[in-house]
Amino acid sequence: MTNELTIHAPAGLPWIEFTREFDAPVSAVFNAHRDPDLVKQWLGPRGYEMTVEHWDFRDGGSYHYTHRDGANEYGFRGTFHTVRDNELAVQTFEFEGMPDEIALEFMRFVDLGPEGQPGHCRLEGRSIGSSVEGRDAMVASGMEKGMREGYERLDELVAASASA
Amino acid sequence: MTNELTIHAPAGLPWIEFTREFDAPVSAVFNAHRDPDLVKQWLGPRGYEMTVEHWDFRDGGSYHYTHRDGANEYGFRGTFHTVRDNELAVQTFEFEGMPDEIALEFMRFVDLGPEGQPGHCRLEGRSIGSSVEGRDAMVASGMEKGMREGYERLDELVAASASA
Repeated sequence: MTNELTIHAPAGLPWIEFTREFDAPVSAVFNAHRDPDLVKQWLGPRGYEMTVEHWDFRDGGSYHYTHRDGANEYGFRGTFHTVRDNELAVQTFEFEGMPDEIALEFMRFVDLGPEGQPGHCRLEGRSIGSSVEGRDAMVASGMEKGMREGYERLDELVAASASA
Repeated sequence: MTNELTIHAPAGLPWIEFTREFDAPVSAVFNAHRDPDLVKQWLGPRGYEMTVEHWDFRDGGSYHYTHRDGANEYGFRGTFHTVRDNELAVQTFEFEGMPDEIALEFMRFVDLGPEGQPGHCRLEGRSIGSSVEGRDAMVASGMEKGMREGYERLDELVAASASA
């Protein structure tokens, strides 16, 4: 049984809001966002190879990574405005295929307490586009599938490290 | 005669849009944003002393500065997502007195051609709050006065360097 990703894209506003619970300690889910060797094992849809050119996960840091699907390459880059351990990450986000469509993304990591052995937490996100049209283009690009599959891969990653 | 600052804060949306023309070459106005020794001579309202703790104006860079008014200190920090010479700067912005109210700001530098000797350009901005309430709080905080006086100081700065 998989926890559900909920996405809300309110009409006439430039953001999406999403939530996803994990049957894992908040520290494990946060660490899977912090450590580039872990990030590249789950971020994005299945079937892509991810390379991380740069990942400096701290206040004022920045990142750059590439997804590869055969001959196709998709580059992404941004900055980390705020990183608070096990609590909050605020980053900018740009898909290099849509230059200057930059989003500001808030990810709150909420500890839901030890409901059962593996721990339990919720990720609460808001991704704010620079226009309503930009947000709509982001939704239309298949963002939801990529997020859903990515978080399923994150489930598998934290389950594997918990049982290791 | 001073060029006018126009600010538009559309109801129900989380951003402000602003424009301001300058009787100066686009390179002079851009440089006054790039060089921290110039930035601290104009950014913000009159009557404050500004110190720049950090200013790395490039893709993936970051900044931190403080305005002082007697015993009062106001800190600001953010990241630079995109910097394209004489064309575009995209940054995050946070007033440390309102933690986690982070905005994403686009500033386009538009060359309007040599209308008279001193050059002529327009700054076109969009500052996107993380919520409509956050945008409203930013407007209510006296942002407009600070911007208006800051751009008047920028007029004086570029006029002084043109005649130097």
